Amino acid sequence: DDGKQLSNHFTLSAPPAGSQWPHGLGSAQVRQEVALLRPLAVPYRLLLGPGPSNLSPRVRAAGSQQIVGHMHPEVLQVMEEIKAGIQYAFQTRNRITLAVSGTGHCAMEAALINLLESSDTVLVGNNGIWGERAADVARRLGAKVHELLKPPGEYFTLRDIQEVCATCGAPGLSPTQVLTVLFSPRAWHSTNPQWGCGAELWSPSRHGCLLLVDAVASLGGVPILMDQQGIDVLYTGSQKVLSAPPGISPISFSERAREKMQRRKTRPPSFYLDMSCLASYWGCDGEPRMYHHTGPVSSIFCLREALAGLAELGLESSWKQHQAVCTRLCQGLQDLGLELFVKEEAARLPTVTTVRVPEGYNWKEITAFLMDKHSIEISGGLGPTAGKVLRIGLMGHNATQDNVDRLLQALRDALQHCQHSRL
Amino acid sequence: DDGKQLSNHFTLSAPPAGSQWPHGLGSAQVRQEVALLRPLAVPYRLLLGPGPSNLSPRVRAAGSQQIVGHMHPEVLQVMEEIKAGIQYAFQTRNRITLAVSGTGHCAMEAALINLLESSDTVLVGNNGIWGERAADVARRLGAKVHELLKPPGEYFTLRDIQEVCATCGAPGLSPTQVLTVLFSPRAWHSTNPQWGCGAELWSPSRHGCLLLVDAVASLGGVPILMDQQGIDVLYTGSQKVLSAPPGISPISFSERAREKMQRRKTRPPSFYLDMSCLASYWGCDGEPRMYHHTGPVSSIFCLREALAGLAELGLESSWKQHQAVCTRLCQGLQDLGLELFVKEEAARLPTVTTVRVPEGYNWKEITAFLMDKHSIEISGGLGPTAGKVLRIGLMGHNATQDNVDRLLQALRDALQHCQHSRL
Repeated sequence: DDGKQLSNHFTLSAPPAGSQWPHGLGSAQVRQEVALLRPLAVPYRLLLGPGPSNLSPRVRAAGSQQIVGHMHPEVLQVMEEIKAGIQYAFQTRNRITLAVSGTGHCAMEAALINLLESSDTVLVGNNGIWGERAADVARRLGAKVHELLKPPGEYFTLRDIQEVCATCGAPGLSPTQVLTVLFSPRAWHSTNPQWGCGAELWSPSRHGCLLLVDAVASLGGVPILMDQQGIDVLYTGSQKVLSAPPGISPISFSERAREKMQRRKTRPPSFYLDMSCLASYWGCDGEPRMYHHTGPVSSIFCLREALAGLAELGLESSWKQHQAVCTRLCQGLQDLGLELFVKEEAARLPTVTTVRVPEGYNWKEITAFLMDKHSIEISGGLGPTAGKVLRIGLMGHNATQDNVDRLLQALRDALQHCQHSRL
Repeated sequence: DDGKQLSNHFTLSAPPAGSQWPHGLGSAQVRQEVALLRPLAVPYRLLLGPGPSNLSPRVRAAGSQQIVGHMHPEVLQVMEEIKAGIQYAFQTRNRITLAVSGTGHCAMEAALINLLESSDTVLVGNNGIWGERAADVARRLGAKVHELLKPPGEYFTLRDIQEVCATCGAPGLSPTQVLTVLFSPRAWHSTNPQWGCGAELWSPSRHGCLLLVDAVASLGGVPILMDQQGIDVLYTGSQKVLSAPPGISPISFSERAREKMQRRKTRPPSFYLDMSCLASYWGCDGEPRMYHHTGPVSSIFCLREALAGLAELGLESSWKQHQAVCTRLCQGLQDLGLELFVKEEAARLPTVTTVRVPEGYNWKEITAFLMDKHSIEISGGLGPTAGKVLRIGLMGHNATQDNVDRLLQALRDALQHCQHSRL
């Protein structure tokens, strides 16, 4: 009985008269769903979770533009501007600087899939779900994975890295097989302050490995200087500080990373994310551009406007702004009697603040109350912190003092209405 | 000398006063590019190439919507509507029906990466660039690839398939290792008329293999009935008949394809495209949804509106409309003395018409003239047909008789102004 396998979407009925299909096939069996024939209705929400952020007005305008062909000179010019915008935002002069046609996770995969071969060893700094993801992807690629584990809220020190590098460089492994993947912590949102001067204190090149940094939740909100910090691969998302829709992700590869990719003995198991093809399509290799895939034109327009907004504001102003609203938020949260998850002040990421769920409260009730009564989104934890924390993002267009005050007032309201065991 | 490695984007100058960066790092070296600080300017073009098509007004409106969180109930509801919309457009009741967060090529990769393991044998119908792509991806995955080669403009017959299947089923290969990949021809735009009733004349299941069909350029413009035709994997793009921006791609897997994926001994080399994760994220497996990646919310809204538009119009009306404008176009092209590339009328794809570059003309001059003087895009050939043909797409929102007449008039103008050797 076919009917049993159906989801409940369909209104099944006899085929309409005159609906004989060509080639001797039967008639249409699957009908239009009623809900799809209603108008699209999107409610307004203030998005103060860990992302996506609300779109800025200029990004919304770009999203409503009529598109042109993805290889038109006007789109190629916009792609050039995006490359320059990423180079500015990343503070890099890397030639291979472009945007992959996917989300932040896709950019992570693009990095690993191009850098790793099955013979390679990779060290993954795992202090949260994104480290787990990177280790998962590296294992799928057949690489030998070493994990540097840290509890949520903690970060990696130079000593940690040095110790594990020594282990990885053990018999049978040449140093160049070691690739250090270090994540700017996304899920727990503590920065790795000692890594701010990584290039001076610890040099990946001296250790014969590459340094990969995930800056999805941090780029534009906290100082990251790719070239000066000796970062070999850096990527970010569009939907955090950049305040653009998710779906297109900036990425950049150093000269050393490019050389490692050129030395590959096998091709990456993806054509979509093959960086040699993408570099050609984005005009990064000085050769005529080769068609690769149909660029997501609307997303390209939106990303251009987001990068232009950051360039107009200036990186340093953006960092200051994020630090200021984060400081105001942390003070307000503590005034409400809440406990910040990351103990060390210098280790807190200004873009996303993680706070413990207060005793006697259910995190889901708090987030639901904020949504229902105040149209504000904040999030619970993810992976190992699920159920334990609330995550509050103030990024890009949303990083304003007004939003801090609005959120604190809503949280005060929630704490009054949602308490359970305290009753 | 660092300066030599720079692209010419940057204005280098002394760091501005007060720009000392934290953590003892140096100052900003990479400055904002001037072009990025100018307003975004997008010219209007009538996109009558093989895609993307112009966006429909309701899709543009969706693209300008403010976004909400990708796991909000409202977005999950929209995702349910998208699943139903794809099931209607594909004429399928497959549970695993969703949209991948990437372009049409990404959907092709999602299909192959989930279905193939390195021990598998795949037969690729290669009559153009998309067959070449599929063979390339399958080889990257370590599969054994058989190619069924046909010249551009020709299509595969049942006899072709049967002959090669017999070869693939040779000693050492069990029939279940054979996966038939058959492309609805995209690059040459001839349909495979005998395949319209593939399920009746030739059954993939009887041959122990799966049938994969690429419908990027055809879905919505030509009858495709996934379940009735016995297609195991079907995917399409958003930017052709659906008239939405590229970057999100509908895909569906039959029960037999699902079983093949469940029997995998190795995990797919991608987490981003792992169908078991995606099926969970899209709520296709009857279990609670698991977070997988940050859904491209704006693209999701646009795709919903595109599928709603197709549902409102009705599939059969859409097919009739595409056939009518194609007939009018073909007549007009022949009246201009041009020769259609696909000889057999029944084999012509109604969505994209391929016409030979007339003798004495340079195709680039014709397309440039149409663009410069008439703001109309049409395209040259791709891969093996490069330089030989022009490709004209009339899809979705653009499939109107007015557009046919406008194009024919512009082409007449171009033929008068661009001829060379005839002078």
